[in-house]
Amino acid sequence: MENIAPNAPSPENQQRSLQRDDCLRAFRETRDCSMQLAAPLSPEDQTLQSMTDASPTKWHLAHTTWFFETFLLEPHDKSYTAFDPAYRYLFNSYYEAVGERHPRAARGMLSRPGVDEIYAYRRHVDEAVTRFLLTASEADWPAIASIVELGLQHEQQHQELILMDIKHAFSLNPIAPAYDPQTPPPGTSSDLGWVDIPGGLYKVGHEGETFAFDNEGPRHRVWLEPFRLAARLSTNAEYRAFIEDGGYSRPDLWLSDGWAEIQAQDLSAPIYWRQRDGEWVEFTLHAEQPLDPNAPVCNISYYEADAFARWSGKRLPTEAEWEVAFSRASVEPSEGVSLHPTAATGDGLTQAADACWQWTSSAYAAYPGYSPPPGAIGEYNGKFMCSQFVLRGGACITPRGNVRLTTRNFFPPSARWAFSGVRLAEDHA
Amino acid sequence: MENIAPNAPSPENQQRSLQRDDCLRAFRETRDCSMQLAAPLSPEDQTLQSMTDASPTKWHLAHTTWFFETFLLEPHDKSYTAFDPAYRYLFNSYYEAVGERHPRAARGMLSRPGVDEIYAYRRHVDEAVTRFLLTASEADWPAIASIVELGLQHEQQHQELILMDIKHAFSLNPIAPAYDPQTPPPGTSSDLGWVDIPGGLYKVGHEGETFAFDNEGPRHRVWLEPFRLAARLSTNAEYRAFIEDGGYSRPDLWLSDGWAEIQAQDLSAPIYWRQRDGEWVEFTLHAEQPLDPNAPVCNISYYEADAFARWSGKRLPTEAEWEVAFSRASVEPSEGVSLHPTAATGDGLTQAADACWQWTSSAYAAYPGYSPPPGAIGEYNGKFMCSQFVLRGGACITPRGNVRLTTRNFFPPSARWAFSGVRLAEDHA
Amino acid sequence: MENIAPNAPSPENQQRSLQRDDCLRAFRETRDCSMQLAAPLSPEDQTLQSMTDASPTKWHLAHTTWFFETFLLEPHDKSYTAFDPAYRYLFNSYYEAVGERHPRAARGMLSRPGVDEIYAYRRHVDEAVTRFLLTASEADWPAIASIVELGLQHEQQHQELILMDIKHAFSLNPIAPAYDPQTPPPGTSSDLGWVDIPGGLYKVGHEGETFAFDNEGPRHRVWLEPFRLAARLSTNAEYRAFIEDGGYSRPDLWLSDGWAEIQAQDLSAPIYWRQRDGEWVEFTLHAEQPLDPNAPVCNISYYEADAFARWSGKRLPTEAEWEVAFSRASVEPSEGVSLHPTAATGDGLTQAADACWQWTSSAYAAYPGYSPPPGAIGEYNGKFMCSQFVLRGGACITPRGNVRLTTRNFFPPSARWAFSGVRLAEDHA
Amino acid sequence: MENIAPNAPSPENQQRSLQRDDCLRAFRETRDCSMQLAAPLSPEDQTLQSMTDASPTKWHLAHTTWFFETFLLEPHDKSYTAFDPAYRYLFNSYYEAVGERHPRAARGMLSRPGVDEIYAYRRHVDEAVTRFLLTASEADWPAIASIVELGLQHEQQHQELILMDIKHAFSLNPIAPAYDPQTPPPGTSSDLGWVDIPGGLYKVGHEGETFAFDNEGPRHRVWLEPFRLAARLSTNAEYRAFIEDGGYSRPDLWLSDGWAEIQAQDLSAPIYWRQRDGEWVEFTLHAEQPLDPNAPVCNISYYEADAFARWSGKRLPTEAEWEVAFSRASVEPSEGVSLHPTAATGDGLTQAADACWQWTSSAYAAYPGYSPPPGAIGEYNGKFMCSQFVLRGGACITPRGNVRLTTRNFFPPSARWAFSGVRLAEDHA
Repeated sequence: MENIAPNAPSPENQQRSLQRDDCLRAFRETRDCSMQLAAPLSPEDQTLQSMTDASPTKWHLAHTTWFFETFLLEPHDKSYTAFDPAYRYLFNSYYEAVGERHPRAARGMLSRPGVDEIYAYRRHVDEAVTRFLLTASEADWPAIASIVELGLQHEQQHQELILMDIKHAFSLNPIAPAYDPQTPPPGTSSDLGWVDIPGGLYKVGHEGETFAFDNEGPRHRVWLEPFRLAARLSTNAEYRAFIEDGGYSRPDLWLSDGWAEIQAQDLSAPIYWRQRDGEWVEFTLHAEQPLDPNAPVCNISYYEADAFARWSGKRLPTEAEWEVAFSRASVEPSEGVSLHPTAATGDGLTQAADACWQWTSSAYAAYPGYSPPPGAIGEYNGKFMCSQFVLRGGACITPRGNVRLTTRNFFPPSARWAFSGVRLAEDHA
Repeated sequence: MENIAPNAPSPENQQRSLQRDDCLRAFRETRDCSMQLAAPLSPEDQTLQSMTDASPTKWHLAHTTWFFETFLLEPHDKSYTAFDPAYRYLFNSYYEAVGERHPRAARGMLSRPGVDEIYAYRRHVDEAVTRFLLTASEADWPAIASIVELGLQHEQQHQELILMDIKHAFSLNPIAPAYDPQTPPPGTSSDLGWVDIPGGLYKVGHEGETFAFDNEGPRHRVWLEPFRLAARLSTNAEYRAFIEDGGYSRPDLWLSDGWAEIQAQDLSAPIYWRQRDGEWVEFTLHAEQPLDPNAPVCNISYYEADAFARWSGKRLPTEAEWEVAFSRASVEPSEGVSLHPTAATGDGLTQAADACWQWTSSAYAAYPGYSPPPGAIGEYNGKFMCSQFVLRGGACITPRGNVRLTTRNFFPPSARWAFSGVRLAEDHA
Repeated sequence: MENIAPNAPSPENQQRSLQRDDCLRAFRETRDCSMQLAAPLSPEDQTLQSMTDASPTKWHLAHTTWFFETFLLEPHDKSYTAFDPAYRYLFNSYYEAVGERHPRAARGMLSRPGVDEIYAYRRHVDEAVTRFLLTASEADWPAIASIVELGLQHEQQHQELILMDIKHAFSLNPIAPAYDPQTPPPGTSSDLGWVDIPGGLYKVGHEGETFAFDNEGPRHRVWLEPFRLAARLSTNAEYRAFIEDGGYSRPDLWLSDGWAEIQAQDLSAPIYWRQRDGEWVEFTLHAEQPLDPNAPVCNISYYEADAFARWSGKRLPTEAEWEVAFSRASVEPSEGVSLHPTAATGDGLTQAADACWQWTSSAYAAYPGYSPPPGAIGEYNGKFMCSQFVLRGGACITPRGNVRLTTRNFFPPSARWAFSGVRLAEDHA
Repeated sequence: MENIAPNAPSPENQQRSLQRDDCLRAFRETRDCSMQLAAPLSPEDQTLQSMTDASPTKWHLAHTTWFFETFLLEPHDKSYTAFDPAYRYLFNSYYEAVGERHPRAARGMLSRPGVDEIYAYRRHVDEAVTRFLLTASEADWPAIASIVELGLQHEQQHQELILMDIKHAFSLNPIAPAYDPQTPPPGTSSDLGWVDIPGGLYKVGHEGETFAFDNEGPRHRVWLEPFRLAARLSTNAEYRAFIEDGGYSRPDLWLSDGWAEIQAQDLSAPIYWRQRDGEWVEFTLHAEQPLDPNAPVCNISYYEADAFARWSGKRLPTEAEWEVAFSRASVEPSEGVSLHPTAATGDGLTQAADACWQWTSSAYAAYPGYSPPPGAIGEYNGKFMCSQFVLRGGACITPRGNVRLTTRNFFPPSARWAFSGVRLAEDHA
C-alpha cells in the first residue's frame, strides 16, 4: 500500500459547531497540510495537468484559497482586499454563479501566476482569514464557522486530488519519478471472510449537527434484502488471477460500455500496472514497485471492478448495503459517525477507509427529499448527479476529516485515477 | 401528437404461456406489422443510418428475422437451412456470444442485401417458423413458446425503433419528408392536476407467468416517502414557457453534463423544434407541423427533462414512484398488468402510455436479486445497466405488446430521438 | 486490370468549338453514358456515401444535371422552369457564389429525392437542354457551346467518381459485391524499360482553341534537367516485393506525414488488398480477385507511391517531366493533344491513360500567369490549389474525353480511392 | 515590431569551413544565447507545451544539447560518458534512425528532469564538446567542424522556436504575461513601392563551401516570367482594411481549405489580434500592445496571406522569384550570400529578414537533383517535403546565422504561430 497519509486535523473538529479556537487550529493545520503535500514537488511538477480531469498542484493550492476568499472573505469581511482580482476568474473551478472561469482543460497552461506567487496568495488569505476569525462577532460566528468548516472539508478533498493528480502525471513520465522515495511497507491479507447482514428496513444518510456534505442527507429509510459483505478488499493477487483467467478478453464479464472502452483503448490491466521483464510492477507515489500480492487492488475503474466481481461470482454492494453493514444500525439515527479506518469492526469488517475507496453499484443520485442549498454553494454536489457511481469508505490518501460513515465519493465509471478498489458482496438467502 | 400506432397483436397475447394457435397468430400479426411499418418507405429510405445509435429500416427488418433464426430455428429446428450464412454476421446486433458482428456504425454501408432480398429473407424465416411451430412436440412447446414470445417482444421493440430512426433520418433532410402525409389531430390538455400517493413499503417489479423482460424482475420491496405525481404529461406550451424564460441560458437549472452538452452543441430547443418565420414548428412523422401547444413535449433528453422539472419547481419521479402510482397496489403482487394506455386511472392519472415515454430520475440498474439468464439471451438487458436512465409508460409509437406496468425503457441522458417526455413529481409532506 | 471503360464521346468532340450537331450528339452520348454507369446499381446502392470524400451515385447523377441547369439553362434560357427549386440547394457541390448548399458529409442522408425522381430530373433537364441547343441563336452559340463543353467534361469527371465511389462503398460491405460480375482479363507486363529525355527549356500546358480546363494553362516555359522515365507503370508484383521487404515498417522510406498515417491507421498494404487464406486478393469492381502480379499497382496514396519509389532507388516524376516525355515536344506549342491511351509512343512509353493515373511529385499549384475565370465557374479548380499533388495520364475508368496530354488530376497525398499508380523516374547524368 | 533579437554569432562564422578558434567561439556564443533567451522564463514557464506543434522551453534547451551529444560526442568522442542514458529517448525529436522517442504531444508532461537538471546537462555537454574540439586531430577536423556547424544552425532554429512557442503559450494565459516587459518601438512605413524583375533563365539555390542546409541545394536553373515584387511587407493597417472590407466573410477570396478552417474555427482576425474596448490590440512578446498600423502584419497563416493577396489584386511570389529578386543575380552562382536584413537593396527592396518570414506560393519540395544525406541526419529536412509551403527571408526573432539568401523555412498552410507575413508580387507584362 502507498503510505502517504495527509496530516489530519484532530478528530475534535468533527464535533458539532466549531469553537473559535478549534476552528483556528483546524484552519491552520489543514492549510499547513496542503503546503506539506506540495513540498516534495518542484515548480515544474506543480504546473502539470496530465488530463482534463486532473489539475496542477499549484492550481489546487490556489483554488482552495480562492474558496475562502470567495465564500468567506468577500461576502463577510468588509475590510478584505483581494490579492489579485484576476484570480476570481483564474481559480474558479465550476461555480457558474460566481461568473466566468478559466477553462478546466487549460489549467495546465497557466505558468503564471507561479508557485511563489500562489504561495504568497495563500499567506495573504491565511492572514486575512485568521484576523477575521479572531474579530468576528459572536452573533455571526455560527454562520462563519459553517463556511470555514466547509472550506476545510473542501481543502481536504483537494489534498486527496493533489496526490491522485500528481500520481497520474508522474505515471506518464518515462523516468517514473517518485513523489516519495521511501519504500512502502508490504500488505498483509488473510483468507476472504464474509459478514452477514439481515434484511429489513434501515436508515441511511447523515443527520444531526456535525458536519456532512449536503449530498449525505437527508437521512432516510431503505429496505434491504439479506446480503453478505466481504470482510476485506480484494487483493492484487486476486485481481491478477482474474487477468490470468482471460478477464480482459471475455465480453460476457463486462458491461457493454466497459467492453467498448477496453477494446477502444486496448486495455489489459489496471492503469498503473506494467510488465517489466515478465513481472508485474505497479507505479505508485513511491515510483515503480513490485506488485504487492497482498495489497488491495487499487486505481481501477467501475467497469473493472464490476467485471472482476462478476468473474468472482459475486457482485458489488449498493451504497446502502455498505453503509448499513458498517454502521450495524437498524433504524436508529447515526450522528456523524467517524469511521475508524484501520481497526476492524466488531463484525470483522476491515479496511473501511485506510486502503481504497470502494466502488458501489449505486448510481450517484439525490437522496429522497434532497435539494441543493441556494446560491453558488448549491453547485457543490447536486449538479453532478448523473452518470457517476458512488464510492464509499476512504483511501490511504484521504484526509481523516473527509472520512465519515456517510461520505459519498463519486466518479464516472471509466475513471481509473482515483484510489478505488473492490469490496465484494452477494445475496444471502 | 403523432398518430402512428403500430398494429398491435391483440391483448390475449399477453396472457400466460401462449397456446399454439395464439402463438401462430401473434407471430403472423407481429411480423406483418413490421412490414406495414416499412411499406411507406422506399428502398433508399430503408438504407439510411443517420447516426450510430440509429439503424436502417431494412436492418431492423433483417435483424428481427435473424433473432428468430438464431435463437429459435438454428438451435431447435434440425431441418432448418440458413437463408444466407453471411447474415449471421451481418445482422447480429450486439450478442458477443453469437460471434463477431458487423460494426454498428457501419450498418448504413450495407446497400446489399437490398430490400427485396431482405423481404425474401423474412419470408424464408416466416415459413420455417410457421412450419416449425406447427410441428413442434408438446414436450418442447413451453420452451419454444417462450422463445417466440421473446422474439415477438423484441420485434415490437424494433418496430418502435423503425419509427424513431426514420424520423431522425428524415429530420436531416432539408425537404422534410413525411413518413405519413396525413395531418395529425390536435392535442387537448387541461390544467395540471396532481395525484397524492402515501409513503410506505411497496412492491414493484414483475412476477408471475406472463411475459416480461428479465430486467423487470424480481419483484421486490421498496420504501417510498409520500409524493405527488402530475396527472398528465407536461405540454409543448409549458416547455415553450421554459424556453422563453431563458431555460437554455441558465446554468443553475441544468446538471453539469447537460449544461456542457447544450453549450457544446449550441442547443436552445428540443431536437425537432424549428423556427419558421418567427413561429415554432415541430418536425414529426407527418413532416413539419405547427407546434401544438396542448400536445405533450416529446423527444427531449433527460437533461432537458430534468432542467424543465427544476425550472417548474418540481422534480422527476423515481421509477418506483411511477410504478406504484400507476398500480395503486401496496405490497400485493401485481401479475403482468397491462396498462390501459389512454383511459384515465381511477385516480385521474392519464397518458400512461399513449403519448410519450416518461423520464424517471432512476438510473438503470439491476433490481435486487437480478441476474441475467445464461447464454447469449443474457446479453439482452443486463450489460446495459450503466449510465442510462429509466423511462416508464410508453409512447404513441410503442406497440401495445411492449406496454406493461413494469416495462423499463432506458436511454443515455443525452438521447433525444426517443419519444420521451416529462411527467412531473414532487415531495408531499 | 479492372475493365470498366465508360462509353466515350468520339474524339471529334475534342476539336475546336463544337458544331451544333456534334454538340447535341456529345450531350446525348455523355448523358446516356452516366445512366449506363448507374444501371447495375440498385436504389440502395445509389444512396450510399461511404466517406466524406465520396458521394452517392444518385447525387452524382443529380449534381451533373444541376450543373447544366445552373450554368446553362437558368442564365441563358428564359423559358426554362426549374424542376424543383430545392435542388438548387441540394445538389450544389461547392460553388459558394451560387449560394448555400447541403453539407458534403451529409449527402448520404438524402434518401429523397429518390432514384426515380432524379431520373425524372435528368429527363427534364435533358429535354430542356436539347430544345435550347436547337433554338439558340448563332450569335450566342460560341458562348453556349463553351458552357455545354464544360458541362460534359464535368459530367465525365463525375462518371469516373461514380466508379471510384461505388468501389469504395462496396469495399466496406463484408459480402464484397461486384459492380460488374465478369472476370477481368489478366495483365501482361515486360521488364521495366526506360526512356531518356534530354534537359532543356520546354513548354508545357495547354494552348489553343480546343477544350481544356482552366488549370491546364497558360502554356509556359520550364527548364528541365535530363531525366529518365519508366516505360510502363510499376506492377502489383513489384509492389508486393516492397511489402515483403518490410516497406510498411521502415520509417526511412516514408515522408513524415505518410509514416504518421500508416502508424495511426495500422496500414500494411494498399487499401483494396486483402489476405485470404494466406494469399493476396484485391477488391475490384469485379468483386474480389486474385492479385494480378502483372497488372499495375492501383489505388495507392501519394505516400505509398513515394515510399515505393524511394525503396526502388528511384523517384516520382514532376508533372512537367511527365508531360514533356509524353509530348516529346521541345518548345513548340502543342494544341490539345489527345493521348492515345493504349498504344506505345514512338519512344516506347506505354500505359499513358489506360491503367492508372500516375502520381507526380508536383504539388498542385497555379501555372505562371494563371488566374481563375470570374464568377462561380472560377471556383472549379483554383480554390483547390493547396495541399494536393498532381496526377497525370488517366485510368481505365477515365472517360476518354477527360484524357489530354495536359490534364491535371489532383488529390491529397493521403487519398487512396482514386485509380492511382506509379510511373518511376530518375535523374539522368 | 517585436524587439527580441537573439544574440547572433558574428558573421565570420558564415565563411567556409570553420577554423578551430572560430568554431569554439561560435559554439560558446550560440550556446550562451539559448540560455539568455531562457533567462526571463520561470521553471513553470519553461515547462509549458501549448499545442502539439510547440515544445517547452526546457525541452528545446535539452534537445539542442542532445543533438551535440548524439551526433558529435557519441560517435566521435570515445571518452564521452552520457549525462543520463534516458535522455537519448526523452529528447530525440523525430529521428527514427536514432530509435524510439518520447511522443511529441507529451513533451509538456515531463516536469522532470527539471530546469536545474537540464541546465546541468547543458554544462556537462558544453564542457565535453569544448574539450573534444580542443583535442580533435587535424585530420578529423573538417568532418567535426561540419557537425558542429550543423548543430549550431540547429540550435539557432530552436532559439527562434523558443520565442515562437512561449509567445503562443503566454497568449493562452488570461493575464497576458510579457516575455519582455519593455515597450517595442513603433514601426514606420511608406507607400508601397515595387521592384521590376525581367524574365529569363536564372539560377537559384545554394552552392559552395559555406554552410547551408541540405534542402537549399543543389543550385539549379529556373525559368521565370517577368514579375514585380513589393518593396516592403504588407502592414497591419493594410491587413485591417482587408478585415474591414469583409475579408473573413467572402469565400471567393479564400482557398477551399482555408475557408473551411476559418469557418470551423470561427476566425475573423490574425491569431494574436484582439478587441479591447472597441480597439485592436496585438498580443506580443511585450504583452498586449496597441495594434501598430505601420508594422508588418505578422503571425498569419498561408491561407490568410493568400486571401489577403487575392483581395489586394496581387499574389504571393514563388520562392524562386523571391530569391532572384533579392539576389539580382542571373545565372551566376551565388555563394552563401548573407542577407543584410535591415538595409535596403540597391533596388529598393527592404525588410528582407528583420521583420517577418514571407510566405511564398511554392510548396516545399526537393530541388532537382536533391537527395537527403545518409543516416539520421538525412531526416533533418527531406521527410517533411509534403503539404507545407516555403517562407523566405527571416524574422525579427531569427538568429542571424540562420539568415541566408537561400534559406527555406516551411510550415503547413494553417500554421499561425510562426512570425510570418506577406510580401506581395504580381505578373509584369
